[in-house]
Amino acid sequence: MNKQFDSLPSADGLWTCLRDMAGIDTAIVVAQGVIRWIGERAALPADFAGLPVHDGGHALVTAGLVDCHTHLVYGGHRANEFAMRLAGATYEEVAKAGGGIVSSVRATREASEDELFASASVRLRSLLAEGVCAIEIKSGYGLSLEHERKQLRVARRLGEAHGVTVRTTFLGAHALPPEYAGRSSDYIDLVCNEMLPALAQEGLVDAVDVFCERIAFSLEETERVFKAAQALGIPVKLHAEQLSDMGGAALAARYGALSCDHIEHLSQEGIDAMRKSGTVAVLLPGAYYTLRDTKLPPIEALRAAGVPMAVSTDHNPGTSPALSLLLMANMACTLFRLTVPEAIDGITRHAARALGLQDTHGELAVGRPANFVLWNLRDAAELAYWFGQRPVRAVVRQGCIAEGSL
Amino acid sequence: MNKQFDSLPSADGLWTCLRDMAGIDTAIVVAQGVIRWIGERAALPADFAGLPVHDGGHALVTAGLVDCHTHLVYGGHRANEFAMRLAGATYEEVAKAGGGIVSSVRATREASEDELFASASVRLRSLLAEGVCAIEIKSGYGLSLEHERKQLRVARRLGEAHGVTVRTTFLGAHALPPEYAGRSSDYIDLVCNEMLPALAQEGLVDAVDVFCERIAFSLEETERVFKAAQALGIPVKLHAEQLSDMGGAALAARYGALSCDHIEHLSQEGIDAMRKSGTVAVLLPGAYYTLRDTKLPPIEALRAAGVPMAVSTDHNPGTSPALSLLLMANMACTLFRLTVPEAIDGITRHAARALGLQDTHGELAVGRPANFVLWNLRDAAELAYWFGQRPVRAVVRQGCIAEGSL
Ligand SMILES: [Zn+2]
Ligand SMILES: [Zn+2]
Repeated sequence: MNKQFDSLPSADGLWTCLRDMAGIDTAIVVAQGVIRWIGERAALPADFAGLPVHDGGHALVTAGLVDCHTHLVYGGHRANEFAMRLAGATYEEVAKAGGGIVSSVRATREASEDELFASASVRLRSLLAEGVCAIEIKSGYGLSLEHERKQLRVARRLGEAHGVTVRTTFLGAHALPPEYAGRSSDYIDLVCNEMLPALAQEGLVDAVDVFCERIAFSLEETERVFKAAQALGIPVKLHAEQLSDMGGAALAARYGALSCDHIEHLSQEGIDAMRKSGTVAVLLPGAYYTLRDTKLPPIEALRAAGVPMAVSTDHNPGTSPALSLLLMANMACTLFRLTVPEAIDGITRHAARALGLQDTHGELAVGRPANFVLWNLRDAAELAYWFGQRPVRAVVRQGCIAEGSL
Repeated sequence: MNKQFDSLPSADGLWTCLRDMAGIDTAIVVAQGVIRWIGERAALPADFAGLPVHDGGHALVTAGLVDCHTHLVYGGHRANEFAMRLAGATYEEVAKAGGGIVSSVRATREASEDELFASASVRLRSLLAEGVCAIEIKSGYGLSLEHERKQLRVARRLGEAHGVTVRTTFLGAHALPPEYAGRSSDYIDLVCNEMLPALAQEGLVDAVDVFCERIAFSLEETERVFKAAQALGIPVKLHAEQLSDMGGAALAARYGALSCDHIEHLSQEGIDAMRKSGTVAVLLPGAYYTLRDTKLPPIEALRAAGVPMAVSTDHNPGTSPALSLLLMANMACTLFRLTVPEAIDGITRHAARALGLQDTHGELAVGRPANFVLWNLRDAAELAYWFGQRPVRAVVRQGCIAEGSL
């Protein structure tokens, strides 16, 4: 195991000269990797005054970022397909040249665990350098027990090697594998009766997800997967109402889903159901942007209903090769008209909730593991305003100084 | 003068194990900061074999990037205005709170040269870290001789301190300063008769630009500025047809303009004129994106006419707080449907041409200063495919190894 973070300096001590999001001079005390005290600098108890000091240089401090929806582990990439489309190739021509999701399935199946680990590590480092402290990683390009296991094992290994909280999501029901063409129901049987129980048994499944859409799996098939997850006590999430209103969100809410994701075509009925079940709405502006979608998710109705909104990269090789969560915050504001505080909540506390991590990530509070970011910025609004920048001064992740130095 | 690049290692020697954009194993010989040889590795003349080796590790190599349209030097920023707008503030409320371009003018006038240098340096470093080797920097937030001079002096100093080619553009005719309200023609007199001659005399003006638009300056005022530039032998450029078709492009072409920039509303007549004059079309997708514009520039007609298309950040605090030129390449593809080769030409050779730098920047060729980028990528298409990443392995800038290490 390459534990690349083993030699990182400890973050224990007194973090001082920090500015919180309200502009207040703030201090944080870290002991044994946990936040022991946080508050206005002037109110720091005398007992902490003698601790070793990390001078924050008046940097803005926020909780570590949380990327709550990614497909980070896959073989190959689809840059050539991207280029072909722009050069005028039709979908048939792209498919003939081996493009589309099946190309990612093929490349993922052909790749070794080490190869998948290496390529995903490069992408993960881009997100980590920007202050991500927890990330969800889905399977869904293996589409067989052996290859889904490989993806999820790589996801776990990424967390251990890079010292970042990883939540694994089993997305066996992402697409119909070629060998099951025309036998969708048989494949869902395999997902429910063999793949999920085996992978759960191996401790590889923190949540279960389905792509519920006309081009993927039906509402009935989705419910079968949810029932199987429920029987194992595993929480569910859903790729819901991206291309059409399938009623997936209401179904997911009935199963107490952690989140419904995409939701461009979400109905008021779906919103009401999500509100009642406490399900998070995960907005994915990178896919909206890449697909040149024009159907906006119902932001105002979600806001009015008080449904928490998270924002994520949806990193994947086909529809969102995005490697910056701050850029997604900017896109959530620019394209979806989230306010800046909503966008910041979307990549911190609401994203944590979408992963069931609301008690450990996404907020700065006493008793939580030390995961926070110091920014080379003065105002919180700058987090969503600039785009394409990387304004990180330092990242404390899992109680270590993981990026930057003071 | 903080010459931050004085201690950088020289790039002289044999750069080997590089892949060119066609995937060919390539070598580059650098001597005294200049490219002495470039070609297929197997064809390397024996005389060069003994040179000190820089092993490129099979990295993709391209010419250094060129950002040909920026307003990089200004006081303050407008993140709070961005946040206010999203929170529902009207234009009047934003203006009352001190927002809009006048706030940037005020903050620029109030800032010292050192303050402007420091804030612009942070932004410049973001672009340099991504492989930018030449950049245009406009004035236009000073709007008086004293303060325009200050902006242009900072631009020159940025080039010297950071070891990057800077082209200065005098954009005194960017907006009407508050003290000239209702006296547009008088202000243009000042620009033509006092500001431009004085700044040109001081060697601060590589080109002259005007914002020709209903909300800025008329066609007639634009021509007066062009005439003044022509009398001094200084090339012109134009912010043209961004919000409406003013006929600015055809005028600029008559004056042999280096470039017409924005051009969402460009007519076929304007395109024909640009083709005849060899004027570059500069596309600014960051502003299009931020403004949620829906009027696309006439890409197909420009392509059909053979007008070279450049792509730039248009970095500015109001309509494009963008700090990644690669992201602009992705946006040019995604939003404007440029092909990948067009987008890459747009941030290299066509951008160089938009600055009159076509003989020294934007292409890899013998006799040119060593400005090139090694990428942690295999395929050229990946430059435009991923977004929000920073895949730089190393940057050779002005004959020094300026970013990364081998
Ligand atoms: Zn997804
Ligand atoms: Zn501009």
